[in-house]
Amino acid sequence: MTSSARIAVDAMGGDEGLAVMLAGVARARRRYDGMRFVLVGDEDAIREGLKSHPNLTAASEIVHAPEVVTADDKPSQAIRRAKTTSMGIAIDLVKRGEAAAAVSSGNTGALMAMAKLSLRTMPGIDRPALAARMPTLGANDVVMLDLGANTEVDSRNLIQFAVMGAAYARTVLDLKAPRVALLNIGTEELKGTDIIREAAQKLRAATHLPLEFTGFVEGNALSRGNVDVVVCDGFAGNIALKTVEGTARFVADLLRRAFSSSIRSKIGFLISRPATELLRHHLDPNNHNGAVFLGLNGIVVKSHGSANEIGVETAIGVAAKMVRDDLTRRIAEDLGNFEAQAA
Amino acid sequence: MTSSARIAVDAMGGDEGLAVMLAGVARARRRYDGMRFVLVGDEDAIREGLKSHPNLTAASEIVHAPEVVTADDKPSQAIRRAKTTSMGIAIDLVKRGEAAAAVSSGNTGALMAMAKLSLRTMPGIDRPALAARMPTLGANDVVMLDLGANTEVDSRNLIQFAVMGAAYARTVLDLKAPRVALLNIGTEELKGTDIIREAAQKLRAATHLPLEFTGFVEGNALSRGNVDVVVCDGFAGNIALKTVEGTARFVADLLRRAFSSSIRSKIGFLISRPATELLRHHLDPNNHNGAVFLGLNGIVVKSHGSANEIGVETAIGVAAKMVRDDLTRRIAEDLGNFEAQAA
Repeated sequence: MTSSARIAVDAMGGDEGLAVMLAGVARARRRYDGMRFVLVGDEDAIREGLKSHPNLTAASEIVHAPEVVTADDKPSQAIRRAKTTSMGIAIDLVKRGEAAAAVSSGNTGALMAMAKLSLRTMPGIDRPALAARMPTLGANDVVMLDLGANTEVDSRNLIQFAVMGAAYARTVLDLKAPRVALLNIGTEELKGTDIIREAAQKLRAATHLPLEFTGFVEGNALSRGNVDVVVCDGFAGNIALKTVEGTARFVADLLRRAFSSSIRSKIGFLISRPATELLRHHLDPNNHNGAVFLGLNGIVVKSHGSANEIGVETAIGVAAKMVRDDLTRRIAEDLGNFEAQAA
Repeated sequence: MTSSARIAVDAMGGDEGLAVMLAGVARARRRYDGMRFVLVGDEDAIREGLKSHPNLTAASEIVHAPEVVTADDKPSQAIRRAKTTSMGIAIDLVKRGEAAAAVSSGNTGALMAMAKLSLRTMPGIDRPALAARMPTLGANDVVMLDLGANTEVDSRNLIQFAVMGAAYARTVLDLKAPRVALLNIGTEELKGTDIIREAAQKLRAATHLPLEFTGFVEGNALSRGNVDVVVCDGFAGNIALKTVEGTARFVADLLRRAFSSSIRSKIGFLISRPATELLRHHLDPNNHNGAVFLGLNGIVVKSHGSANEIGVETAIGVAAKMVRDDLTRRIAEDLGNFEAQAA
């Protein structure tokens, strides 16, 4: 990325507070050389917090925001305070070209509503989509979208999600031609709704895009690592993503119970701890953090509300890669190519 | 159950073959006293197989079927051979009142299509639904429906699924008033589609049913054990069920990799083996086997294609409980009560 690229950080959002946000930004500062930050929030508190991070101070500016969007705020309430909240001001910096991307750990619904209203949808995109990464058994994470921005979609929306998701996977997963599949309840061509089958037919015909359409993928194959981008409506995507989270936690809880069920199993657990730590590392959401709103005229990254400093660093890394690869332009080009062939 | 109740078993369906089916039936015979069976399939092969199970021979009759529905048969193909296949004949025995229930480990789509065509939908039910159980951290399994019979539904369908699922949970989970929730992408009243919100509103008002409607449940809470019945359309349900299966296997695979990553972790694994065996037992699909088609004029239980003899025994146990509690009549009564209050 160029030395002038700046990332606006909503320093106040998230459940973990300002200190964790700043610690995460400081980590990102060390990792991504030349990156600069605009820290948005309570000026005095940020200035005080920066005392622990001299390396960050030199690479940052502070923009004061008198208010904070809370977890309980409805999107409609948050929008009315766009000009005074740290979240709203961070997005506005992107809109005015003063930052290349915005990162927030705050209220997802509010962030989505504000980003959409302020940045507007890209030409050629009917609906923006929320995308995130999940761990797999394969060499890289899988990207899934939409995760809840659109509970109902048509086949055109799904195709646009596929194009956007592939562009995103090329950037964050460093893949040349990501394997893209539609989430469905079977892999045979006749399975699913008319909308999904129509989208599949058109994606199969679009052979010139920098992606490989592989057909349908079922819920049990999401983590297998044989697909890079999973495309679905926001209802199914939200259910699938949360079911993955819930089931991983469920199995981990059962394991914890099992390991503490006897002295013998406790001893076995202590001995094999390095192994279970590896597992924990692989499943830790902080290592996959950073959901993005694709399809807007600007880059907005949602960090998980409970992300720790490593999670915040990961989310900022996602924003940095998107800025470096000029993702918004890349999506526009791919869409243009798709429309040109389809016409 | 009365001594005259008989369960028709498609002895040929499933990936594991006749020997596993018969071994499973023999286990069920030992557990459920007085139960009788009609074994449907190749007569010579069944007679030969029964030689290993003298206890079962006395409690069984054989009905010959010259053909078998294969895993690759399309539902439309299977239907044309309903009179000659072991699956079709087993269902027909239920239709003619010669068996109280049918159990098959064969092709799900074919079983669903044949059962629907032969047994027809119950009065008051617009669409039958596929229900199954999943393990939780709580005291009992959770029942989920629909799992793929209906990719699109209206609010009336969802309400009928809730009533049927609750009746089923009262029977198989032995609960007085199961806690029922609608699967959604958030727990606030405004979340989800119009169809889901409308179903929620009506279920909230139906206070006289033997169930407790608890609102919405998200994908991450399916396994927590704070809800007994999860209601959704067949698309979301199929995605959620398969995502649970896939993620549980994913975590188990990661664990296996981790445990075999060093000598030290292998030793730890061996020591804590009783603990991991407990976990394996809890997650083993054979202990939760037996999906059912609710809403038909007769009981049909789908055993998993790869079920072992314990799985087959579990599925037959599900059929036995449904017969014992006269589930079809129970659903009809509950629906009548719901309609009476709603009118």
